[in-house]
Parts: sequence; C-alpha cells; structure tokens
Amino acid sequence: MRIDRLCEAINKTKCPVCVGLDTQYDYLPEEYRTSVENPDIKTTAECVYHYNCAIIDAVSDIAPSVKVQAAYYEKYGADGIRCFHDTMDYASAAGLVVIADVKRNDIGSTAKAYSEAYIMGSAADFITVNAYLGIDGIQPFLDDCGKTGKGIFVLVKTSNPSGGEFQDLDVGGQKLYQTVADKTAAWGAALIGEYGYSAVGAVVGATYPAEARELRDRMPNTFFLVPGYGAQGAGADDIAVNFDLNGFGAVVNSSRGILLAYKKEQYAGLPADKAARQAVIDMKNDIFCALQKRGIDL
Amino acid sequence: MRIDRLCEAINKTKCPVCVGLDTQYDYLPEEYRTSVENPDIKTTAECVYHYNCAIIDAVSDIAPSVKVQAAYYEKYGADGIRCFHDTMDYASAAGLVVIADVKRNDIGSTAKAYSEAYIMGSAADFITVNAYLGIDGIQPFLDDCGKTGKGIFVLVKTSNPSGGEFQDLDVGGQKLYQTVADKTAAWGAALIGEYGYSAVGAVVGATYPAEARELRDRMPNTFFLVPGYGAQGAGADDIAVNFDLNGFGAVVNSSRGILLAYKKEQYAGLPADKAARQAVIDMKNDIFCALQKRGIDL
Repeated sequence: MRIDRLCEAINKTKCPVCVGLDTQYDYLPEEYRTSVENPDIKTTAECVYHYNCAIIDAVSDIAPSVKVQAAYYEKYGADGIRCFHDTMDYASAAGLVVIADVKRNDIGSTAKAYSEAYIMGSAADFITVNAYLGIDGIQPFLDDCGKTGKGIFVLVKTSNPSGGEFQDLDVGGQKLYQTVADKTAAWGAALIGEYGYSAVGAVVGATYPAEARELRDRMPNTFFLVPGYGAQGAGADDIAVNFDLNGFGAVVNSSRGILLAYKKEQYAGLPADKAARQAVIDMKNDIFCALQKRGIDL
Repeated sequence: MRIDRLCEAINKTKCPVCVGLDTQYDYLPEEYRTSVENPDIKTTAECVYHYNCAIIDAVSDIAPSVKVQAAYYEKYGADGIRCFHDTMDYASAAGLVVIADVKRNDIGSTAKAYSEAYIMGSAADFITVNAYLGIDGIQPFLDDCGKTGKGIFVLVKTSNPSGGEFQDLDVGGQKLYQTVADKTAAWGAALIGEYGYSAVGAVVGATYPAEARELRDRMPNTFFLVPGYGAQGAGADDIAVNFDLNGFGAVVNSSRGILLAYKKEQYAGLPADKAARQAVIDMKNDIFCALQKRGIDL
C-alpha cells in the first residue's frame, strides 16, 4: 500500500515534508526561463517542467513526497496537463511518493471518470478529494484505491482564512469538519496498512492547530496531509500537533517556501535547486525541534 | 453579462435545456469511432471531439447551452484537455452558452489559478465550483466574473443519492445546503443582470424537487443549473419547480439522454446527431408541458 510506502519514506528520511510543486512560470529563476520575452504556452509549460525536475533532483534523497497542485498546470491548458503528468512521472521515477492535489468531487459516475484519470491513469500515489457530495462521490475512488493500493486525502479542515465559514458550522453538537472527519475515518476503516494508517487520509490545515490536535486524537488511523506551513503563516509548533506520539501520521506541505527559497536572504548566493534543498533541510529541522519539544523523537 | 445571454438564448429557443457533453469513447456510435481496435489516446480524444461537434451542430439552433464535464476529458490526459477546450471553443463559436463543469475548489491563491484557467483562459461562459472552503476560495472567481461578465454555479444541493449526507445536516435550524444557498445568493448580489438573475448561480439537483421548490423561493435572483433529469431519474414534473413564474431561472441538463439517444428504441433508425436533436426537442416539450401544468407559459 502506498500509505505504507509514505510511512517508510518518512521513517527513512526522518523528514515528514511534502514538497509542493505549485509551480508558476513567474516563480522561475532567470536561468530556468526562456530568453523569449512572451513565450508561448508550450514553452512556458516546458520551462515549468524543467524547474520541477531540478527541484525533484535536489530533494529526492532527503524528502519523502511531492504534492503537485493541478490548478497551476491547468492554467496552461493541454500543455500544462502534459507538464502535470510528466512532473508526476518524473517524481515517481525518482522514488518520491506523489500526491496529485486535484480536490476533485462529483456524482458517482463522474467521480469514476476522475478516478480513472488520476487513481488509475496517473503516476499519483494519492489524490485529494472534496466530500461535499457524500459517499457516492467518494466510493469510486475507494474502489480503485482497493485495487491499486493507492490512497486519497479528503478535505476535512482546510488551511485558508475562510475555511471555517462552512466547516465550523455546528451540526448538532459538533462541527461540520468533525462530521466529515468521522466519515473519512469510517470510509478508510477497511483500508488500513501495516503502520496503522489508512489509505484514506485527511487534509488538515496547519493554520488551525487546536482543531488539528483534536482531530489527531479523533482519527488515530488517519494520516494527515498538512498544508499551510510557511507562506500561509503556520510554524513548526503549529504543525507538531498533527503527529502521533511516534512522530508519524502527518506530512507537512510547503510550496512557495521551497520553490521560491532562492529569493530569500538566508539562501542568498545559492542556485535555486540548492536553495530548495536547504529549505527542505531547514524545514525538517524546524519540525524535528518542534516535535522534540512535545517529547516526540522522529 | 453571460447570464443575460443565457436568459436571452432560453427566451429565443423556448428551450431551457443544457446539452451535457459528458462524452466517453464508449458512448460513440460506430461511425464516429476509429476502425483501429485499441486506438491511442490522441485518436480517442479526436473521435470524442468529432462526436461533440456533430452533437453541437445538431442542436445549436434549438438549444441555448452546453455543459462540458471535465472528468470525461481529464481521463484522456493532455489530449483530453485539448479536446475539452476545443469542444468549448466549437460550442461557443456555434453561439451556445458554454458551462465548464469542473467543480473546482481551493484556497484563495490556488482558486485564482483555477480562475485563470477557466474564467480567464477558456471559452466557458460559466464554470461550476464547490464552496466547502468558503468565500476566499470563491472570491477570485467573483473578481474575474466582474471583469469578464462570466459567471459561476455554486454546488448547493447536488443530484446524487448521497447528496444529503453532509448537505442535509442541520446547522442550527436549517440545513447546510440552505446555508450554502444563502451565501451563494449573497455572493451574487452585486452581479445581477438585466433579467434579475445573478452571474452567481446554483447547482440544484432535479432529483430533490421539494428542496428545489423551497430554494426557488429562497433565492429569487439565483439562476439554477439543474442536473439529474433523465438518466439520474428525475422527470419534467420534478424539474418544473426550479423555474420562476415566467418560466425563467433554470436550465436543465441532460447528458446521457442526449448523447446516447441513438440507442433508444424511440429514436431507432435515426443517426446519432438527429437522435440527439430529437431528444432535445422531446425534452423541451416535456418541460413545456410540465410548466404549463403549473400555469407557466414559456
């Protein structure tokens, strides 16, 4: 099961970090851009791909996983989607666990088509999904996860400021995201791997640490994909609560903090790939210290 | 505003029908397939495109709109996405109002990328979105709708059997979908067109007519995109409640009922495009009669 591979990779690297490839052409350092002033979309997408490959090469021995955010590729149309798949193929070949951040959701027959696209038809080991349509929009993914050993991360408590607008609504003594959490745990109960974690994980934003702490207790067999570290404002202390007492159970995503590390003063003089690598190492140490404060040894 | 164009097109055709292009290669009649046994993806996507064009040609003078479901194209990767965009371009050039059914959702910065992909960067007049992340995942779309005159349809009450699993939860005296409905109406209040309908519409499933009737009263300025007619089980009487007393305010989608009409006994002998056209006409008449029963003259 891919969830076991993720746990093993974290165990090996001691680095519960997910490198977020939310790559936009604007993010690219000069040397990865084309010399043409207004490049066409195909060239743009190719430049993004080459930057992604450089980042993957720079981190593949120290990080367990990447998350590729579909939106940044979809805006380049068919060429972008080719880049999206090529990036996932490259990351997978480099030994990284690949999360396709697509947040897909639809009625059953259409969810099945999405599952064909991403669970059955891509190099992704995991995809993110939105559960607003209930179980029959999730079941096709579960069926294909059962067949392939792949997994999903269900949006439970998102990292954005207005995440609570609906997610925090009281639904009879608990909040909506807690009900989504309970369902997520139940949906994953039949797909638990060797490390005690299910192929059905949850997206739990780093920016709401109190809620994350409660969710960690609430869903002990659910692995967390944790966005919101860095650019979105959460620090390592905020994210430490997402881990279990063995230092397992979560992988923390950072996108801009790694892709744009070369622009930071602390990494001045480093080429972009080396800056990205150092940002991953610094993030790993940051998380390591925060876990130690909680008495957890990774 | 595109919402006005949609109202005008419905007024002109007297046909509040959206032709759903959820096209899969399996759906294609023999004459639209390639003679190759296991065609490659590029050929597959091209065949789908040609079938879509034939359907569009067959209905563009009698129907106001098409809905193109992204999932069925994403499963063919980059070639599928090219087909998705080409189909929207073709439908738009044929004068149809185009709805990209993508159900995208993400945090603000990523929602902005999705908006660049589909509001700013495609021929779609409308896209569907999922509001689980609250306003800051919606705002980028609203901003671009303000700039372009385009619109969105927010998932409120979906047509699938488990739609109520979360959507019907009681959130303090009303149901979650009603709260999503109220927010949707509020988000669209600044974008109301000449016909009294907002650029911010709602997806309201035909399979829950009692809820749809209540929503029609609850959000008088919100246009409804109504899936669930035909293959999903709803009939014309079920969908009549989505319309206002002037016969406006809703467009009813049918996908399989039109794309696969050529397989139905009642259209035996007709080529697929003619069968699709006749299915649209029959659906129009079906809705017309149901509206007349309610005293509404289209």
